[in-house]
Amino acid sequence: MEIVHTVNEMQKQADTLRQNLHKIAFVPTMGFLHEGHLSLVRAAKQYGDVVVVSIFVNPAQFAPHEDLDKYPRDFNRDQHLLEAEGVDIIFYPRVSEMYPRPYHTYVQVSDLTEALCGLSRPEHFKGVTTVVTKLFNIVKPHSAVFGQKDFQQSQVIKQMVIDLNMDVEIIRAPIVRETDGLAMSSRNKYLDPQQRKDARVLNSSLQTVRQMVQNGILKSTLLKEKIQEIISSVPCQIDYIEIVDAETFKNIDTVKDNTLFALAVKIGNTRLIDNFYIELLEKEKTWQ
Amino acid sequence: MEIVHTVNEMQKQADTLRQNLHKIAFVPTMGFLHEGHLSLVRAAKQYGDVVVVSIFVNPAQFAPHEDLDKYPRDFNRDQHLLEAEGVDIIFYPRVSEMYPRPYHTYVQVSDLTEALCGLSRPEHFKGVTTVVTKLFNIVKPHSAVFGQKDFQQSQVIKQMVIDLNMDVEIIRAPIVRETDGLAMSSRNKYLDPQQRKDARVLNSSLQTVRQMVQNGILKSTLLKEKIQEIISSVPCQIDYIEIVDAETFKNIDTVKDNTLFALAVKIGNTRLIDNFYIELLEKEKTWQ
Repeated sequence: MEIVHTVNEMQKQADTLRQNLHKIAFVPTMGFLHEGHLSLVRAAKQYGDVVVVSIFVNPAQFAPHEDLDKYPRDFNRDQHLLEAEGVDIIFYPRVSEMYPRPYHTYVQVSDLTEALCGLSRPEHFKGVTTVVTKLFNIVKPHSAVFGQKDFQQSQVIKQMVIDLNMDVEIIRAPIVRETDGLAMSSRNKYLDPQQRKDARVLNSSLQTVRQMVQNGILKSTLLKEKIQEIISSVPCQIDYIEIVDAETFKNIDTVKDNTLFALAVKIGNTRLIDNFYIELLEKEKTWQ
Repeated sequence: MEIVHTVNEMQKQADTLRQNLHKIAFVPTMGFLHEGHLSLVRAAKQYGDVVVVSIFVNPAQFAPHEDLDKYPRDFNRDQHLLEAEGVDIIFYPRVSEMYPRPYHTYVQVSDLTEALCGLSRPEHFKGVTTVVTKLFNIVKPHSAVFGQKDFQQSQVIKQMVIDLNMDVEIIRAPIVRETDGLAMSSRNKYLDPQQRKDARVLNSSLQTVRQMVQNGILKSTLLKEKIQEIISSVPCQIDYIEIVDAETFKNIDTVKDNTLFALAVKIGNTRLIDNFYIELLEKEKTWQ
């Protein structure tokens, strides 16, 4: 496994790989890897014969009051985990390599970024789409894998890739969960033991409404109320509970094909997100 | 020479060319070609063994009140001119191929786009940087040639390429002029015979101050006054006369290395631009 620190070197390697007809599959991360990230790496192996993982905590996607400085980092541990997965290249640049001064250019996707997490984090997706554009130009992948946990992010990136004609296949890989159902996240580390227990309400509320939908309850207001009731049973601050069209993120009144249930909740100072996604509603069952 | 209409086909051809170690040199145009464009094609031949020219009148860089609909087009003539120059591929997409609905993503360069032409055309450069990003992702060139006539455009694109780590070399080719000095432009066609004569003041005013600088007159206020005096000798509306740092487009008081003299003038309804650029001031001469 190779560790590449500079843009120039990474681009050269990507060119050589492409000239030799290799397929580059790419997993962008902010490091401090957990099983969720490793599942993305395993998915990547199905799409390319060379897997590149980037580790870069991107300042442009954090607001001034957010957790950029305390965002957890452990490169040595990450390196061993990726080595064990058989990753070929880690791209691990410094901030000054990615954002030399003066820096002036941003990529922005409208509409999709103005719902859900975009409401409380208005500049977040601009930072994400900008750094992903940069990383795609540096790593030159044929495909890139994103986690479903950040569903909105993956949808925004899909739209960007289509709009800007980036020749990269975007793959969305399923959420990986702790044994008690909490979606894996580097930020789970911030939770104290009680908060860690409380955090289970995110997934359990979603599981409950999934069951309700299977039982034919499709009205968004009822389903949202149930989620709110379960989440409010622990001390927390709800950022949003939304039931939306999974393509447009517009609110919907009645669950249908392609519906996203998404939530963001602050437990203590830690903002957690979770979601589930209904691609095809089993109509016979649910409309009975 | 091949004519490619779809994004998909162009990307496939670019991949094949790159796999076979060809160097792709690219000239993006809006068509209605003149000697200025052809000089860019000739420059491109020095940078690549395959030359791709795009012809696309990009709606995103026109404001609603501007001349999108009446912008001159003549694809047959363009095709013959490019064939004669030995161009390899024309990329000639429809608007619906480049901007399918829904369309949400824009690339924006701040600061540099807020001076000069950006003041009277605030959305223009956003349209330019977006379409150039798209075209780079479609044509996958090693190098791209832009004309110095649109100096600000080429500088904005250079900044975008650096910021977004696009692996494309940007080349700026000199202004080509009519025999009387008017910078070539597809928009010159809009001028009636008297306006066409009057339009000579753009270049003649720049030539006069170039001489003044050579004679050691370096104060921007004096030089601007002279340009204004010459241009105002014909019926016209001055958009701007600026003497700026050619990297940052900040106003400067005294001409120095790397100074750009730029102007935009409306003659009748036709907005014309011209500029000249001092890379190195010959100090012995000018400071005497």
